Amino acid sequence: MAATPTPADRFSFGLWTVGWPARDPFGDATRAPLDPVEAVHRLAELGAYGITLHDDDLIPFGSDAATRDKIVQRFTGALESTGLVVPMVTTNLFNHPIFKDGAFTSNDREVRRFALRKALRNLDLAAELGAQTFVMWGGREGAEYDLAKDVRAALDRYREAVDVLTQYVIDRGYQLRFALEPKPNEPRGDILLPTVGHALAFIGSLAHPEMVGLNPEVGHEQMAGLNFAHGIAQALWHGKLFHIDLNGQRSIKYDQDLVFGHGDLLNAFALVDLLENGGPGGGPAYDGPRHFDYKPSRTEDMTGVWASAEANMRTYLLLKERAAAFRADPEVQAALATSGVADLGRSTLDDGETYAELLAAPELDVDATAARGFGFVRLNQLAVEHLLGAR
Amino acid sequence: MAATPTPADRFSFGLWTVGWPARDPFGDATRAPLDPVEAVHRLAELGAYGITLHDDDLIPFGSDAATRDKIVQRFTGALESTGLVVPMVTTNLFNHPIFKDGAFTSNDREVRRFALRKALRNLDLAAELGAQTFVMWGGREGAEYDLAKDVRAALDRYREAVDVLTQYVIDRGYQLRFALEPKPNEPRGDILLPTVGHALAFIGSLAHPEMVGLNPEVGHEQMAGLNFAHGIAQALWHGKLFHIDLNGQRSIKYDQDLVFGHGDLLNAFALVDLLENGGPGGGPAYDGPRHFDYKPSRTEDMTGVWASAEANMRTYLLLKERAAAFRADPEVQAALATSGVADLGRSTLDDGETYAELLAAPELDVDATAARGFGFVRLNQLAVEHLLGAR
Amino acid sequence: MAATPTPADRFSFGLWTVGWPARDPFGDATRAPLDPVEAVHRLAELGAYGITLHDDDLIPFGSDAATRDKIVQRFTGALESTGLVVPMVTTNLFNHPIFKDGAFTSNDREVRRFALRKALRNLDLAAELGAQTFVMWGGREGAEYDLAKDVRAALDRYREAVDVLTQYVIDRGYQLRFALEPKPNEPRGDILLPTVGHALAFIGSLAHPEMVGLNPEVGHEQMAGLNFAHGIAQALWHGKLFHIDLNGQRSIKYDQDLVFGHGDLLNAFALVDLLENGGPGGGPAYDGPRHFDYKPSRTEDMTGVWASAEANMRTYLLLKERAAAFRADPEVQAALATSGVADLGRSTLDDGETYAELLAAPELDVDATAARGFGFVRLNQLAVEHLLGAR
Amino acid sequence: MAATPTPADRFSFGLWTVGWPARDPFGDATRAPLDPVEAVHRLAELGAYGITLHDDDLIPFGSDAATRDKIVQRFTGALESTGLVVPMVTTNLFNHPIFKDGAFTSNDREVRRFALRKALRNLDLAAELGAQTFVMWGGREGAEYDLAKDVRAALDRYREAVDVLTQYVIDRGYQLRFALEPKPNEPRGDILLPTVGHALAFIGSLAHPEMVGLNPEVGHEQMAGLNFAHGIAQALWHGKLFHIDLNGQRSIKYDQDLVFGHGDLLNAFALVDLLENGGPGGGPAYDGPRHFDYKPSRTEDMTGVWASAEANMRTYLLLKERAAAFRADPEVQAALATSGVADLGRSTLDDGETYAELLAAPELDVDATAARGFGFVRLNQLAVEHLLGAR
Repeated sequence: MAATPTPADRFSFGLWTVGWPARDPFGDATRAPLDPVEAVHRLAELGAYGITLHDDDLIPFGSDAATRDKIVQRFTGALESTGLVVPMVTTNLFNHPIFKDGAFTSNDREVRRFALRKALRNLDLAAELGAQTFVMWGGREGAEYDLAKDVRAALDRYREAVDVLTQYVIDRGYQLRFALEPKPNEPRGDILLPTVGHALAFIGSLAHPEMVGLNPEVGHEQMAGLNFAHGIAQALWHGKLFHIDLNGQRSIKYDQDLVFGHGDLLNAFALVDLLENGGPGGGPAYDGPRHFDYKPSRTEDMTGVWASAEANMRTYLLLKERAAAFRADPEVQAALATSGVADLGRSTLDDGETYAELLAAPELDVDATAARGFGFVRLNQLAVEHLLGAR
Repeated sequence: MAATPTPADRFSFGLWTVGWPARDPFGDATRAPLDPVEAVHRLAELGAYGITLHDDDLIPFGSDAATRDKIVQRFTGALESTGLVVPMVTTNLFNHPIFKDGAFTSNDREVRRFALRKALRNLDLAAELGAQTFVMWGGREGAEYDLAKDVRAALDRYREAVDVLTQYVIDRGYQLRFALEPKPNEPRGDILLPTVGHALAFIGSLAHPEMVGLNPEVGHEQMAGLNFAHGIAQALWHGKLFHIDLNGQRSIKYDQDLVFGHGDLLNAFALVDLLENGGPGGGPAYDGPRHFDYKPSRTEDMTGVWASAEANMRTYLLLKERAAAFRADPEVQAALATSGVADLGRSTLDDGETYAELLAAPELDVDATAARGFGFVRLNQLAVEHLLGAR
Repeated sequence: MAATPTPADRFSFGLWTVGWPARDPFGDATRAPLDPVEAVHRLAELGAYGITLHDDDLIPFGSDAATRDKIVQRFTGALESTGLVVPMVTTNLFNHPIFKDGAFTSNDREVRRFALRKALRNLDLAAELGAQTFVMWGGREGAEYDLAKDVRAALDRYREAVDVLTQYVIDRGYQLRFALEPKPNEPRGDILLPTVGHALAFIGSLAHPEMVGLNPEVGHEQMAGLNFAHGIAQALWHGKLFHIDLNGQRSIKYDQDLVFGHGDLLNAFALVDLLENGGPGGGPAYDGPRHFDYKPSRTEDMTGVWASAEANMRTYLLLKERAAAFRADPEVQAALATSGVADLGRSTLDDGETYAELLAAPELDVDATAARGFGFVRLNQLAVEHLLGAR
Repeated sequence: MAATPTPADRFSFGLWTVGWPARDPFGDATRAPLDPVEAVHRLAELGAYGITLHDDDLIPFGSDAATRDKIVQRFTGALESTGLVVPMVTTNLFNHPIFKDGAFTSNDREVRRFALRKALRNLDLAAELGAQTFVMWGGREGAEYDLAKDVRAALDRYREAVDVLTQYVIDRGYQLRFALEPKPNEPRGDILLPTVGHALAFIGSLAHPEMVGLNPEVGHEQMAGLNFAHGIAQALWHGKLFHIDLNGQRSIKYDQDLVFGHGDLLNAFALVDLLENGGPGGGPAYDGPRHFDYKPSRTEDMTGVWASAEANMRTYLLLKERAAAFRADPEVQAALATSGVADLGRSTLDDGETYAELLAAPELDVDATAARGFGFVRLNQLAVEHLLGAR
């Protein structure tokens, strides 16, 4: 069955996902800490291709250099023995109390300087582990109170930080690109760069925009009621989909981090179709890791944790199968034509046509054109039926 | 009392606001059509400075040239006699059935061509009426069904349209800038360029980005659960706040278009403070029209309509007063200092400092720094008390 | 294929659904009015069992008695010739401007009296058409402004109205039960009885609570971020699921009225499983009509309208098939046992056990019990895979 | 100034509020534990009247009887020396891992039995501390996965638990009433009894409904987009407002637990007006404690904690002042009359009038009645201006 993952599928997991001890705002941890080395072995057995991490996931905050090196050595040993890779590394700038008002945009300059140092040092780790992508989730960069944070100054400081980090990577010759991860709120009341759009706009202001893209997360956009597949399409349009966080969210509420597909299944289907079949020639629109950033529910023991890891991959593969069948179905092709989906790829003006010519063209029969039915509901029903495996 | 508006306050209203006949998805119109000339006179009497319009608000869809000219002449007569100006014009590309799948991004190319012609012609009207800003709300550019719209192609088409329109303005020598108005959904399930951020990013891809900015609307951002004052701050940061739509919205639901301040009052306070006192030297951060895009509730008769127009302006002026007092209060100044609000304006690195120097700097006493209290709650309470007129 | 509906499936449609002319708050109608008699014939051909209506859907507001009778006669003729039945009738107390501040709870007593008369007269129509259920959607009973509506007085008036209506039905000997339809907002800022819960509580205060139940609608509960299947379960628990409105909604936004299953597909699956397989002995938990209250998208012509009607029924039947397979799968049965789903049916105290005995029982090994994994993620993944037709 | 609280204002605080160590889902604690005795002294100094607690807030989970008694004795000593009272006690059935799938409705019967014992024992503590109200927040009673929880069985078990607890209170002769606290989600994906309405309906099914009411929380209803003042009005209408949790929330997102008034300020104003001036004769509609259930933001140190406690009380008192002035203003009285607010208190039928008489009454001039303007916007503007202290 196609639903058995292999490294060729490029599935990766955050160390903090399977390793989440399941502490939440109203409850203590329900699971013991997970040895990173065990995580590597188990994920490899399940068919994953990569593992990702925050610095602090692997190396406890405040460790000295010797401890750090020993830990890294043991971890890379596990990577080597399993073949698992580390395609992405990120920095934890949110857990420690020092970051309570943010890191690069804390109102306290000492904190900003500390954060920048922590991130710089982590770039070395990222390079050492062979990562291609450095994700930046600024979860604490924000505010609860509108008059307590100068958002324009915060953007200045965030830009300053990213510019320093990109310069460092250039100077060191690291093969790293940066991927910003937007989120609208939680743990802050409002977070800086709350959506894919805000982060894309910000990137345009950087010293090295070509080195910086996005790492959008399904649930983060859906927490703002936004269409995730649409957001990914815009990120692709700007050439900025550098990495992706797959998970599940059910409507606008706290960040659920469910298994991929365990939230808005129809949108997950559209997303997989876009990633796998949405390229200009019909091929993949994205060739990076399919990265799961989810939390195994607090009700689960370790057996449930591994079952949840497997569930992410199986769902993705099933959706990929369904999307392929959808695209291959002649009835779908006919419905797409009726709906004019490909027509939107044609330019509005003819090649070389001027606006003067457009203005001089004969008037349209407005009522006749307006009467056209687009057949969108039928097209969507075909999608639903393919999703249900009923065609 | 300061709450009496004058033209110096630069308040403007959409013709479609006071003129809304109060038809909604579940009910027929409760008010008769309003003569645009009466709207001009009444708004002038109330102290407004400007009136704005969609082409179809003034000139019925499909009117011939003679009818159009006669209507425009009568309207400009009213403007001249009252001194009211038309700072902004926009095009209705959403009401007629022909736009049911969008205008510039309809899946039907004939519709796209028709829309572009309609907008081009309306640029002439905007110039004729002396408008400085041309707003584009693409309310129908979107989809209900994820697989029925190629979002990347839609962005191509939207860019094509804006590029044609900006070129036309350049060629004609019009003094017009464009302002995109984002909205996340309604009337489409998901709308293209759903937030301030998405629109800002899109602008960066245009042929003439310097001619295109934003017209953010309070309720539209709040329909995505986003902080409007934050969004405006980011728009200002990018130099893109070309126009603004003020109104009220209560949480995430259908587009309410309430009177400004009749929604999230605390955020409205922060917004007015930002617009009026947020400039680099403490002055206004925005000097364009304070434009109200709201709907007098369907329960109101014409007396209520004019009371609601007045309410928008009075609330703005009261918030402006409160914000000035807030800024002038030494206790507030002290609280801002405690909270480090201005500190964020300082660069993280010293002037000329390198990252190497930063990395070589002495280690921070993390626990001591982490122990700092930011005093944000007290600062916010001072804001609340100023807002309540209790200080 | 099982996805072909027959009257035995008890599918019914609102006359206002397929007949919706597709006018929305930002756009004019895109479709011509539909002759109710044609609706009857087309729905019958598609395999529906029933058609439902507001008084005004069939008989224009303000028609005289002769017109009314003629219209009804023609309509019942169509019913007889097709075998379609009218299981439910409801009253339009929201469209006409007179209801702009509500009907039974308008701040204007004359409106309240008018509304009560309209509803009373419509009970005669409901009886004449052989309906078993009289739905009450109080879409205009609400407010935008907190201090403009005395909610307790509104509840008094709503109770007064329902008590009069139930008494009328008793006196006339009609075989009608009432079903309240909750909605949180739209077209009012906040609507009275906003959720299934609020309406259930209200029913307990009525003179004839046994005659009054609920007509919950998928999208209405989801507009409040609530789990529709949970709400239906509580309605069933109280014995109050008298009727149901099936449709689709995507997250918290305006009322979308999509085709059933075109919104939160996972919750739709759980709902169908509950309705079909959730009875105490495993059979249907609900035996009333499966009523679709949706709107064919404004982008569709009449071909699309009928395709959308068909889509509702096909999706329901497919979900029913998938739910049956899910329940029949031994692996699912084992997973349900692991998760303790049926265990919750056992009383917490033993038969006859007192709290004193409970308190005297040996202490639990808390840590051992806490360590149990519930296997919920795996169970949900089995549901997803059955839904996808992958098992 | 009126904004100085005294015990006559009946302000109370949860021990877990000022004592919150500020650990959140993405970050470690930023404050040290607070000695409950210090909390008593500081709150008394600030003018509070009461302190409330979960069992585990005072007595660590798993303490033996001797430890418990010693702790209680020390705590009651502080109460006696300050005059602070304990009007409410509640049980923590959510923090310990054993409750990860709920307490009274866990799928594990041993957990249900353990939870019931814990709650029973805590009733003794509540009585010992002189509490009048026993709050039940079933925060873990819920599910993330629709097919993993039998909601009807859960309601059976929840009823069983409440029935046992009420019987225990009757048998012991305790002067305790129960107050259920609804919440829609977080920490569970969906929580049982998600809103005021669902809990009110549930109460009607209990063995001793007269002993059970509600403890609604501002933010919890607003997390479902519901109007809190409306919910309180319905709770009052059913005679079920036994206790109240005041705090602040900004739109639909994670549970923010801000200071009262730091969220939706207009709704807070309407709420205070309802509580203080909404009784039948214009006096208080609620005479219980004004209980703050909030979290001092994680950015604050202990100075900020006490400032935030003070802020809750000051805001309440300021809103009370504003509401009194609003009610006393003749212009407001006139506007209320224009809006027909009191008219809704009149029954729709005349005293003794029958529906037959209503049906026989002369027809209304529908258009004339429909033309009435309700003046709601002006009324709301008066409220805003009173709130701003501008009248």
